[in-house]
Formats: sequence, C-alpha cells, structure tokens
Amino acid sequence: MGNKQSPPDIVIGRLPIYLRALDILAKENQVVTSSYELGERLGISSAQIRKDLSHFGDFGKQGTGYQISYLIEQLRQILQINREWGVIIVGAGHVGQALANYRDFPDHGFKIIAIFDNDPAKIGTKIHDMTIQDMNSVPAVLREYNIKIAMLATPAEAAQEIVNMLVAHGVQSILNYAPINLTVPEGVQVQYIDPVGKLQHMAYYIRDGE
Amino acid sequence: MGNKQSPPDIVIGRLPIYLRALDILAKENQVVTSSYELGERLGISSAQIRKDLSHFGDFGKQGTGYQISYLIEQLRQILQINREWGVIIVGAGHVGQALANYRDFPDHGFKIIAIFDNDPAKIGTKIHDMTIQDMNSVPAVLREYNIKIAMLATPAEAAQEIVNMLVAHGVQSILNYAPINLTVPEGVQVQYIDPVGKLQHMAYYIRDGE
Repeated sequence: MGNKQSPPDIVIGRLPIYLRALDILAKENQVVTSSYELGERLGISSAQIRKDLSHFGDFGKQGTGYQISYLIEQLRQILQINREWGVIIVGAGHVGQALANYRDFPDHGFKIIAIFDNDPAKIGTKIHDMTIQDMNSVPAVLREYNIKIAMLATPAEAAQEIVNMLVAHGVQSILNYAPINLTVPEGVQVQYIDPVGKLQHMAYYIRDGE
Repeated sequence: MGNKQSPPDIVIGRLPIYLRALDILAKENQVVTSSYELGERLGISSAQIRKDLSHFGDFGKQGTGYQISYLIEQLRQILQINREWGVIIVGAGHVGQALANYRDFPDHGFKIIAIFDNDPAKIGTKIHDMTIQDMNSVPAVLREYNIKIAMLATPAEAAQEIVNMLVAHGVQSILNYAPINLTVPEGVQVQYIDPVGKLQHMAYYIRDGE
C-alpha cells in the first residue's frame, strides 16, 4: 500500500465479482465485452462498473468495449492475485474439511498449504492429500512458507486467541468462519463468512402463507 | 411486507450482527447492555447502532441501556426468526455436507429439513441422520414442509436452472454457495457466500516482504 491513495474498499470488493464474470465470458470464448453486458450479467449498473474501473486506469475505448483477457490480467494485477498466495486452514471440523476440499481456490490465486487442529484424534489423519497438523506447528509453517492468509474454522470461543497468535506471526488477512466478531490491529484484514446471519437477513423479507 | 415501509436493507443486514453479540452477552449472564458496549464489541459506532435500532422502535432508556433479553426477543421478532424456518440443501458435495453438519442453524431460527443431489452414488446415503434424496423429490418436499429457504451448493453450471425450479415452487430466499451470479424475480432474495471473492478482496491490501 505505502502512500498509494486507495480507492474505496467497497470498490475493491466488487473487483472479484467483475473478475468472476469476465472469467466466465472468457471460458465461453468471448473476446470483447462491455460495461452494459457485465452489468446485465451482474445486476449492477453499467455506469457503476465504468466508475469502479476508472479508479484504476482506462481499460476500454468508448464504443469498442473491454478486451476480456486484458481486463482479467489487469484486475488480477490490481488485486495482487497474478501470483499464488499460500493459505492455511485452522480448524479441521466439517467447515475446515470442506475448505480443504474446495476446488475453487487454486485457479484464483490461492493454494492451501496446511490444515491444523488441536484434536489428537484428528492430528496425523489426512484430508485431500494434506496431513492435519498440530496447532503447535502453526508458527513454523507460517514462517517456512511466508504465509499471509489464514482461514479460521474453529469454535467461536477459541477464535480470538488463535487470531492473536496468527497476527503475531505475520498473518495479514483472515477469512473467519467462526461465528464471532474478531479484534485485529490496524493493517490486518478480516472478512466474515456467516451463513446464519445471511439467512436471518433474508428471513426478514419472507412472506409466509403464499 | 405488504405496505410496510422497510428500513434500508443495509440496516436489516446489521441486525443479525447485533443479535449475535447480544446472544453472547446473554450467555455470559449479562442482563443489561448499552450501544457503547455493543459498539466496542463489534467495531461499529454506538451512534450507528442507536440509529439502526431506532428504525424499529424505542428499545432502551437514555442512561439505562438495553435489557438484553428483551432486545433479543424484539430483534428475533423483527427478523421473523421467533419461529423455526425449514431449509433445504441442494447439492451434497463437500460444501453441502458441511452445511448439513453445521451446528449453528437450529438455535438461530433454521432447521435443515432435507438434502438433495443428482448423483446416483450419493442418493440414499446418509449425512447426519438425513438421507440424501434425488433432486426430483425437491418440489414434493418444498410443498410438504412449506419451505421458503434453500441453500445452494451445486456446481456453477447447474445453479441457475435449479434456482428457477426452486423459485417456481415457492422458495423466496436462496443462500448461494455456487460461484455464479443468479437471476431471480422480484420478491426473491439471494445472498452469496463467496470465499474466493473475499480472499481476493483482502489480497489487495497484503504488504508482502514483511
């Protein structure tokens, strides 16, 4: 980051959504797209898309649209995923195991390096070619692989203490599946995956009796 | 909903976060809290919390704070989770299986009724006391249990077609784990769970070489 003036975080958060749509278009062998087409696919206005992208440069010509492969390459560079980041999973319960088996990480900038648990019955067993390691080994693995990203899938009670340890050993990004709000120092990012909260949010709108 | 004037959706989305924090305080046997305490725990300003809650009524007295059990009850009523909603899971891969095993749903307004897949090798096998059923049975189960909520954990390619079928049979809320944007008619809610997008979002901020 340094002195770089960053666009709003909400704009950064939409770039992965654009990238996902562009990847699908590329798989469909399309070469050029427009903010209109992307907007249609995503339910986002074309003006919003153009404004968001304009924070980072001039990626298309008026009337000719965007070269898909070029825009993909640029967005990957902006998001710093034109490389592969090592990621660890802490917690080898059902959620941690599903993450270890999730096939969508490797093509999108991330490689699962290791998975950890503190349950002696789990330590030493295998998930998807990885051996579940003792929590005590976390610092050594973080150091060896220069890991900056962790996914947290522990019970809520254990989460904050583990996060403190991860941050002390250089982790800067935490994807938190534990149902609890985490406190982290400035410069560390946390994103939450909370299916219960999202279901509760949607329940507000349900019209029953239909 | 009818003619009820709804507060902004972003406010509705914060209510489950407040509820989660209140549940934790209640478990810690605390009786009264304040917007300051909630704000501290959640990293949200106390003014924001008071403003959000004021959309729905007057839940605390100046200087005396909120009765936790009363506020929990009120929020559950506002979110329509002072009852139990049946939920189905479509897709019994690793994600669908993790959802079927997830222990956090039953206490928070939701009960998993059934899980479906189209893989003959999976149909008839058991996950967590539930038998995986054939996709063809979805409409009958939706009708029998008056289901309004589905969690979608299928490959991206299959997702839109399945959603069309779910909506045609009365589903109004979809929690989508498939990595694709969905199109739904007005009155149907979709929320996305996208770990890859969240990792990409955070990768933007990582300072390497530290």
